Order: sequence, then structure tokens, then C-alpha cells
Amino acid sequence: MNKETLIEVHNRIKPFIHKTPVLSSSLLNDMVGANIVFKCENFQKMGAFKMRGAANAILSLSNEERERGVVTHSSGNFAQAVSLAAKKLDVKAYIVMPENAPQVKKDGVKTYKGEIIECESTPQAREATADKIKKEKGASFLHPSNQDEVIYGNSTAAMELLEECPELDVILTPVGGGGLIAGTALAAHYFSDNCKVIGGEPMEADDAYRSLISGKIETNESFHTVADGLRTHLGDRNFPIIQKHVDKIIRVEEYEIINAMRLIWERMKIIIEPSCAVPFAAVLKNKGEFRDKNVGIILSGGNVDVKNLPF
Amino acid sequence: MNKETLIEVHNRIKPFIHKTPVLSSSLLNDMVGANIVFKCENFQKMGAFKMRGAANAILSLSNEERERGVVTHSSGNFAQAVSLAAKKLDVKAYIVMPENAPQVKKDGVKTYKGEIIECESTPQAREATADKIKKEKGASFLHPSNQDEVIYGNSTAAMELLEECPELDVILTPVGGGGLIAGTALAAHYFSDNCKVIGGEPMEADDAYRSLISGKIETNESFHTVADGLRTHLGDRNFPIIQKHVDKIIRVEEYEIINAMRLIWERMKIIIEPSCAVPFAAVLKNKGEFRDKNVGIILSGGNVDVKNLPF
Repeated sequence: MNKETLIEVHNRIKPFIHKTPVLSSSLLNDMVGANIVFKCENFQKMGAFKMRGAANAILSLSNEERERGVVTHSSGNFAQAVSLAAKKLDVKAYIVMPENAPQVKKDGVKTYKGEIIECESTPQAREATADKIKKEKGASFLHPSNQDEVIYGNSTAAMELLEECPELDVILTPVGGGGLIAGTALAAHYFSDNCKVIGGEPMEADDAYRSLISGKIETNESFHTVADGLRTHLGDRNFPIIQKHVDKIIRVEEYEIINAMRLIWERMKIIIEPSCAVPFAAVLKNKGEFRDKNVGIILSGGNVDVKNLPF
Repeated sequence: MNKETLIEVHNRIKPFIHKTPVLSSSLLNDMVGANIVFKCENFQKMGAFKMRGAANAILSLSNEERERGVVTHSSGNFAQAVSLAAKKLDVKAYIVMPENAPQVKKDGVKTYKGEIIECESTPQAREATADKIKKEKGASFLHPSNQDEVIYGNSTAAMELLEECPELDVILTPVGGGGLIAGTALAAHYFSDNCKVIGGEPMEADDAYRSLISGKIETNESFHTVADGLRTHLGDRNFPIIQKHVDKIIRVEEYEIINAMRLIWERMKIIIEPSCAVPFAAVLKNKGEFRDKNVGIILSGGNVDVKNLPF
């Protein structure tokens, strides 16, 4: 792949996505002492950046493949994204979801006519259930984060951000399965001169941080984090990209995630989900490192159950 | 006053306000069957349109008056607006607030260095307390809604909206003290050909609805509404403007306000306060009337205590 691949991907998915706005807050800038711009993927169709990768993945399938449908497992947002993109392309979508996924995310899938198959909340259970449907229905498996088409689709958020703010010194994203940060790292590599990419990750699910240190894919024994979208693992497609192009990962505590989320809600008056607050929590934690810098943050999503908030 | 008065006001306050964005949602459009644009004053400085009127009122004072300070009573947002505008102009602000005002609004005043004087939560108690400070300190009284400079400042939100969306058939605002709808009505009168103005009002504080019918200012015996910013009465400066230029008032129930608020939170991913949801609740209630129309809604503010939500 190269720069032209990403431009083609962006053109292909444009009819299916919003070009989301870039917002800033003088209050938050003053708090950090930096010039921060937020790429608002919480305003993306179905409420998260995942629409970009899902649309690209389905658009990359042949007509024969599309007729047999698609299957995915997801903690929620990719499920909605696949359901919506499939619906727009008249493709059947089978969605494997953990039984403890937020109700608002299950409802989202139903809104977009995806068929939900529930399973236990472990990566192993999700994969086994999806595999079964793949075999039974002949459906194409779409991975939420560890698939080239998904990673390239995700790149388009940072491409748009860099087009609007070419002077950025650094872009931060949350790190869950690694698909967003890998896509962002490719975008920064091909569409900026020197823009670094840094990840924010919960201390309670810090597999990417440990993987970058050990040089191999590490896993989490538990996922005790409020950032429900980040309860996943890196994969063999995105990890090499992360190793090559990501500057580092900053880990944050649970209270730092909740504090960052509340600050964005109260000061910017926009709704973001806990996972989405992780990179801003990282900036608040390491203020000195970002002082006087032009900082881009990808606000990954806004699908939160307003009846079940962490504050 | 005339068209030029409002253009001068807008130019005068521009350095102190944001030109707020105009957003739309295809999901909400489909729900109503109309083309709705939302003027996001929840993203205004201090989080509400009140900044516009407060800035204009203080900028209209003489240097001698500014030295003696300003005093106001407010359920919250005008208090923050006066505090912030006064701080920017190096003027002392005395703020009379009901003791049961949301903590987030009291904190806002403190952030902007206003001096809070608490009183009972009745219009009579607020006025008496403000009057005392006016006499003791020689401070200029600023009324949250019933003062020409405040009304003209409020007009600038609809002026910006009409400049961006000149084809609007109707603009809706909430109705509390009447300052926003009066200002909006003047803007529509001077800056559009045929754009109607309609108010949304809680059934539980429907003084404006009843006043338009009786032809004189009616009052509320109680204010049992979640829309805390609308627990006020019309005044003799804004009522004649409303009588002359407002098409009508649509009343909504409490559950309709909460439902409209939640829809905007969940679908648009933006934070609005309960008062702010009232005009969209009115549109949802009277869908047929707005079908296929170009509808503007002024989202008045986003200062809500996220620890104390109505859902």
C-alpha cells in the first residue's frame, strides 16, 4: 500500500461517511497550555469512527461475497458500523456481541437491522461464535481492528484532520484493538512531514504499551476499565504498523479517564464515550510534554448510555 | 430602534462572543419530516446565548457607571454571562441567585469572579435583593430579559442564523423571561422576508402563552418545570415585541421536554440543558405543522449538572 491507496479508500467511502467537524476549546487549551484540536468522530454516522473502516471493508468485497453476508464480533461500535454500512449496501450483517455490552449499543445494532448473536464477554468466545457463523452462512468475516481494509478506512479521519490542520505536531488516539492508531499512524506517515502519533491506553488494559516494550503482542488478563470500547487486543496486521510508526503509548488511570470525559462534556458541551476520553486524559497527565504544541485528538465516539454514566 | 441598531450591537459584541455553529441531524429530520437547523448557543462562551445580551448591556454603560459595578438576579445563565462579560471589561459584578440554583451554575459564576448573593427562589425575593444592592453600591441593574440592550444583544443569535440559512420558514426559541424570543422576533422582522417566530414554553410555566391570549402580562403561580431557565415572567419591554412579532407559543409537557432533551443528546451527541430542549419538544409535538418546512431552532444553552440529569 501507499499514499494513493489511502486516497482511493477515502474517495470510495466518502458517500457513506460524514466529514466530521474539528472543534477546540480555549478553556481546555488554557488548562493544558497547548493548542488542541478535536476531530469529532463522535458526530460520525452511527456515532463513531468505526463507520469508516466498516464501509471500506464491505465496499472491498465482491458481489458474490456481499450476497452471503458479513459477520463480525464487536464490543459495540463496530457492530453498529457494520450494520449500518451493510444496510446501505443491501448486505446481511450477523453481529456477535458480548452479552454485557451497553444496551444503547445493542439498540443501535437493531436500529440498523443487524442480527445480534450474543456470547460471553471474552475475546475467545467472540471469535469462536463468529467462526461458527462464518462456516454456517458463508459470510465474510470483518475484524473490528485487525484487517487492512478496516485500518485503511480508519486512516481517513486523520487524513481529514491533517488536511484541515496541516501544522499538527502530534495526533493522539485511544488504543483498543489497535485499528484506529494504526490507521492514524499511516495517515501521519503519508500526509504530514513530522507529525508524531501517540496512543492513550487504560492502565487496566495496557496490552499495547507492554507489546511495544516487549516487541511481541501481549494480552490482558482482565479488562477492568470503564473504557468499554478498549477491552480488546492488538493483532498481527496492526501491530507491525504501530511498532513502525507510533511514537509511544501513554497509560492512564480510571479516575483520569472519567475526569477527562467530564471535562469534555462540561466544557465543550459534547457527548463522548469513556474510551474516547483516554487520549485527552493522556494529554492532561503529561502536560509538560505537550506545552505550546499543536495537538490533534481523535474523539473516537459518542455512544454512551446516558442512564448509566460514570459520574 | 431599527435594522442599523441591531447591526451596531452585533459589531460591538463580536469581540466578546463566539459565532456559534449551525448543526443538523438527518435522523431528527427524518423523525419530524422537516429540514431542521440548530443554532448551537450551548457552544457560546459560558455555555448560553445570555452572553450576547450581557455583553451588550455592559458595553452600553458609561465609564462612571462601569466603575460602580453591575448587579443582576438570574436563575443561572445570565449570572454567568454578566460575571464573564464584567470580568472581561474589568467591572465588578454582584449576582443575586436563588438558593436552589444548580451547583454547576453557581460554580460558573465563581469561575468568572462574580460575587454571589443568595436569596429565596421567588421573583419577588430576587428583585428586592437586587434593589438593595443597587442602592447600597450604586451598581447598574441589568435585567436578564426585560431590558432593551439585553433584548438587542439576544437578537444577534438569530441574525447569524438567518445570515447562514436565509431560507428559513420559521425560527423557534424557548420562552422564559421573553428576552430571547423578543430578540429573535426583531431579528426575523428586520433580516428576513417572511420567517415566522414561534415560542416553546413548558405547560407548567405558561405565562407567555396565556399573556398572548389575554393581551396583558400574566404570571405563574408555580414553576414545577424541569426547565429551570424558564422559571421567570415576561416583562413590559419584551411583551409588546412578542405581541407584535411572534406568531404563537406552543406549550409542552414535562415528559416531552425530557424526551426531546434525550433525543438531542443521543442523536446529535451534544449537551443541552432542559430549557433548551423545549422548542424541539414543540416541533415534535406539532410535527404536521412543520412538515417539509425549513425550521431553525435556537439551542439556548448547555449548562447542566451532569450528576443530576432528568433521565
